[in-house]
Formats: sequence, structure tokens, C-alpha cells
Amino acid sequence: MIWVNGRTDVDMEEVRPIIWNGTTLYLLDQRLLPEEEVYIPCKNQKDVAESIRNMVVRGAPAIGIAAAYGMVLAVRKADDQGQRNVLTDSIAEKLQEAALLLKETRPTAVNLAWAVERILKKAGTLDGEKPEVMQRELEAEANKMFQEDIEVNKRIGTWGAELIQDGSTVLTHCNAGALATAGYGTALGVIRSAFAQGKDIRIFADETRPFLQGSRLTVWELQKEGIPVTLIVDSAAGYYLNKKIINCVVVGADRVAANGDTANKIGTYSLAVLARENNIPFYVAVPFSTFDFTIETGNDIIVEERESREITHLKDTTLTVPGISVGNPAFDLTPVSLISAFITEHGVIHAPNREKIRAMAHRGGSEVAGH
Amino acid sequence: MIWVNGRTDVDMEEVRPIIWNGTTLYLLDQRLLPEEEVYIPCKNQKDVAESIRNMVVRGAPAIGIAAAYGMVLAVRKADDQGQRNVLTDSIAEKLQEAALLLKETRPTAVNLAWAVERILKKAGTLDGEKPEVMQRELEAEANKMFQEDIEVNKRIGTWGAELIQDGSTVLTHCNAGALATAGYGTALGVIRSAFAQGKDIRIFADETRPFLQGSRLTVWELQKEGIPVTLIVDSAAGYYLNKKIINCVVVGADRVAANGDTANKIGTYSLAVLARENNIPFYVAVPFSTFDFTIETGNDIIVEERESREITHLKDTTLTVPGISVGNPAFDLTPVSLISAFITEHGVIHAPNREKIRAMAHRGGSEVAGH
Repeated sequence: MIWVNGRTDVDMEEVRPIIWNGTTLYLLDQRLLPEEEVYIPCKNQKDVAESIRNMVVRGAPAIGIAAAYGMVLAVRKADDQGQRNVLTDSIAEKLQEAALLLKETRPTAVNLAWAVERILKKAGTLDGEKPEVMQRELEAEANKMFQEDIEVNKRIGTWGAELIQDGSTVLTHCNAGALATAGYGTALGVIRSAFAQGKDIRIFADETRPFLQGSRLTVWELQKEGIPVTLIVDSAAGYYLNKKIINCVVVGADRVAANGDTANKIGTYSLAVLARENNIPFYVAVPFSTFDFTIETGNDIIVEERESREITHLKDTTLTVPGISVGNPAFDLTPVSLISAFITEHGVIHAPNREKIRAMAHRGGSEVAGH
Repeated sequence: MIWVNGRTDVDMEEVRPIIWNGTTLYLLDQRLLPEEEVYIPCKNQKDVAESIRNMVVRGAPAIGIAAAYGMVLAVRKADDQGQRNVLTDSIAEKLQEAALLLKETRPTAVNLAWAVERILKKAGTLDGEKPEVMQRELEAEANKMFQEDIEVNKRIGTWGAELIQDGSTVLTHCNAGALATAGYGTALGVIRSAFAQGKDIRIFADETRPFLQGSRLTVWELQKEGIPVTLIVDSAAGYYLNKKIINCVVVGADRVAANGDTANKIGTYSLAVLARENNIPFYVAVPFSTFDFTIETGNDIIVEERESREITHLKDTTLTVPGISVGNPAFDLTPVSLISAFITEHGVIHAPNREKIRAMAHRGGSEVAGH
């Protein structure tokens, strides 16, 4: 019997980027896929923070869940260091420290902050409880978040599948799949659901430079499920959109402002402009945990700049002249005006704006307060 | 004394993709740059055709010039095979065979056909001449085409430099530089000229997947000349255009239809759409040898599909899962409506259309008949 993430009914044949066995967090090293499937064991919050920073685990929902388990490990660590009789105050301090450490690893995806805050909030409700109760309850909360994420993705998939026409070709960018979440995926969840319904669909996957999430991760996930996929370079998307070979675009998101402006993997904005130019629908599949209602518009979203080596090298191969200046923004901002619809766990928000987003959140019971 | 391409006043410090020493054509292997500078010797038209097909030499004007020398080698070969007293008819046959071989290597760039036809036309004027006269005259014609190409590029550079504001940042895609021509370059010729005039400019270079002409070739050329350059992934161009960090876009072209629709490296169309969306001028630097007046619109331009390995591998490194379906169009089509101006050797054609293009060609004395 395999017992992971608080459950015993886990199908290990599925893509599983995050495995929690009760004492250690195992993260599938996404830097090595598809050639090698290696899990990195994280025994404390520092291991988790390092794995998020180095992109062992990536994708907004996935790094949120990983961070939640990082918080659990922070408590466990306090507990295991012979501090059995430690005061709750000390645990609270450990949690605050871990929260800071984890949140600073990647600045753009809001799910990271959302997940860490949710664990802190849960800890707040356990004020005065014994460390072992705290530990057990926080672990249960992280497992709950993990399972909720999969459920949310499946609901997104069901809503989104209605937008995918039988016989159509769908473009996706980066990896918003099982690997980017607890499992199933947001954009790829929509694709999985449409395919599971028997729709005859083909996927075009952008390779997604520089980290190649498309060629390494999305193509790998889709091929595992037998969903037909064609790999293209990022700059070829316009060619296929213009030829109407692609019928719609579905991507995920790393942070959505209150008005619907969306931060997602670099290149997303370009696809949205090209889709609009060619009258092709552009969909963002996103759970409400990715909305940041403390931010009015996309202008307030910080875009992470990553190291130049991602562009100048591929593994040990040098791709350019030494010492060259590099610009490497990891994300860009797509104005809400270019988004045909958000596909959320509560339903589809067509021609989105601030009011429609808030209404859908309220309808579904998601919090719209700031994190 | 160095004697190349019919001249003795050659500065070998300059970037020289094509060297003709009177008996052999040396092509700088652009697949190995910037790590290694290796010249491939071509002793006959088959070597030249192979080098064009394999992208040892690439760039519309450069493959045209290389093909012209390939035609010269075809005659030389006929001559060297103990056929001193061969009839002109036989040489004409050799030339027709070589023309077919060379033209089929790459279907999109029109300069290839233009150059081969020009050599055939020259041969036609030498009807009845002795083989050694034919050989000498065709070699002289190829050298003339080589030298004209550099002169044309310098005139393009002078016209184009007027469009580049002091203090501005210029985006370019692929490599339309010295390496893509006999020397100097079209888009990079404009940049070289603006820089030589003392303008304070910075270049953003798209890496240009899959062949990485940007990171390997453009960045190398610009760094050699001390022109400040920042390397970005192709899909980041939209981000910088949207932030108005880039003030204009300058690219080259592989074939321009009579109405101005332009085939150029995959990704060019996307940049044109993104430039228009952000009210940023989009310029195409192009000699009249790249216009194809036999083709009315871009719809008639054949887009070359290249092998999937360019996308699935980088040297010996595998980038994706085995056996995946790949789409690899080498070029795309930018409708003339998205082009702010053509920068030609005869002048700048603002807001171009069929009539303005023809008028400029006539003014400059370029032929507008079909090739």
C-alpha cells in the first residue's frame, strides 16, 4: 500500500510532481525531465525553498503546495530538535521565519504567498495547542490543500472542456499541467478533460524558451496520455495562428490582478496579441488561488528576472559569445482586454472584468480579500 | 597580399562569410559559430549546394552569392575534366544542371534564383565564346555580384541610419548581418551605419530558435564591433516592445512579393504584429534582389519546412521526448500592412505598397521583371 499526501488511493502511474510521505517531501526534479525521473527529498523548509528557487518544482499551484509542506517541515524540524516541550510561541516564530524564506524564493506567482498564508492562518486557529497537535493539524491542512488543488483542476477541466470544439487544434504555452500543480493541471487539465470526453483534438505545444517547459514537460505529459501533440518553437505560434491551423489558445497563470490582468510565462502576452489579431479565442485556465485581489492591475505585479545562464547555456553547451548582456524576464503581463475568458473552478468568466471576476468568486465562495 | 573575391584591398578583420580565391569557394561554417571559425572549402557546385542546404552558409543575399560562385565552379569543373575543347553547348548544359541543383537547395529565399539566373543570363551573352573566356567572364560576374552586394548593403545602411534615433534601442531578429550577405549586412548594416555615425544605440537581439542565429551570429557580429547588445529569448520581444524599452524593429527579408508581403525568418510576423500593437515602427532592410515581382502577394511564397531535429536536439543534447511530432517552418509571412517602411539601396519606401515599390525600383534602375 502506497500512502502519500494523506491518501492511500493514489495511482502512481499518474504524473506526480509532489509526494509527501509523512516525514519527507519528495519533489520530482523537473530540470531533468524528460530524460530522467528523479525525486529530490526535502527534509526541511530550506530544502523546499532551494527546490522552488532552482525550479526543481515550478508552476504556480505546484510551488504553492510545495511551500505548504515546507511550512509543515518547519514545524516538524522545531519539534524534532529535542524541543518536545517547546512553546507554541516558538513554533509560531519558526513558521514566520519559514514563511519569509519560502515567499521570497519566487516573486511573481501568488499561490506561493497564498499557500504560506493559509498555513499561517491555520496555525493561528491552533493557538495554545501542543506542538504535536499543531504538527498533525498543519500536515492535515497541507494534505487538504494538495487534494483540493487536484479537485479544483478537475473542475477547471470540466468547465474548460466545453470551450474546446471537437476536431479542433489547441495551442498551449509553457507547462500548466500535472507537473505545474498537485496533479491534473489547469490548461492541460482543460485539454485532458476535452480528450477524456472523446473529443478529437490536437495540441500545439510551444517549446517555451529558455527553460523548455513545453518540449520537456508538456510534450512528455501529453504523450504519456496519448493526446496528439506537435512541438513548435515559440516564434512559430504566430505562423500557425495566422494560418488558422490553431483554433484556440489555453494557458495557465502565475498571478491575476483584481481587474484580470494576468502574469504568466514569458511569451504569453505575445500569444494573446497574436490570437486577437487573428480572431482566435485566448483562454486562461486558473484557480481562484491565483487571483490576487490586493493588486488592482497588472502594473503592480513584480516580474521576476532570472539568471542569464538560462539563455546563454543549455546544460554544459555554450549557446553564445561569453560575457554577453542578457535580458531574462520569466513572466510577462497580458492585459485583461486580450483575454477571451478565464476558466476557473467555479465557472467560465467570458469577456472578463473586475466585476465579473468578483461575482464569480462570490458565487463559488472563494475569498476575495487580500492575502 | 591577400587576393579574394576579385580584390586585393580586403580587410580580413571584417566578418567574411564567403571567400573566393580564384579556384575554391571557402564558406565560413555558420553552424559552428561563435565557438569555432572554420571555413568549408567547396570545389564544385555540389559542395556549394550541400553547404547551402546544411546552412553552412545562410541568409538570403549570402546564399545568392555562394550560388553564383557555385555556377562558376560548375563551368570550371567542365573545363578541368580535360574538356578544354568542349563546346559552349556543353558548358551551357552544365550551367543549367548546376542552376537546378543550386535553386532547389532552399525554396524560400529568392536571391538564390536571382543570382543563378544572373549568371545564366551572363553566360547567354557569351554564346560562342571559348570555355576559358566563359570561365573568366562568369567568375568576373560573380565577383561583381559579391562587390555589388556589399555596396548595396552600405547604401541600405546609409538610408536606414536616418530612421534610427540617437539614444534609441533597436530590436532585430535572426541574423541579417555581414554573415547573411557578402559583408556588412542589411538590418545589421543599418545598425552599423547608425553606430558609425556616432549615434548612441543599443540592440536587442532575439536568440532566434531553432538555429540560434541571434545568439550565435548577430551577437557575435555586434560584439566584434563594440555595438552594445542584449540577448533575449524570442518570446520576450513582446514584453520589451510593450514596455517601450524597444523603440524600433529592423529585420531583413528572404523574399518580398510585388505588393510588399514579406517572407523572413520564423517569428518575424509575430514581431510585426507586436510592433503595430505597441505603435513601434517595423522596418525591413532589403536589397531589390530580394523582391520577387513574379509573385503578386505573400500567399504565393513557398515556406520551407526544415527537419525536426533542429528543434528536438541541440548538438547531441536531446531536448524532448523521442519520436515527437514537430512543426518547423523556417519562415513566415508578414503582410505589407504591418511594415512601416522598406529600407532599400535606392531609398526608404514608407507605408509601402505595390506602386511605391515599383516606383522606387524604376527610380533606382532595378529590374522589376520576373526572374
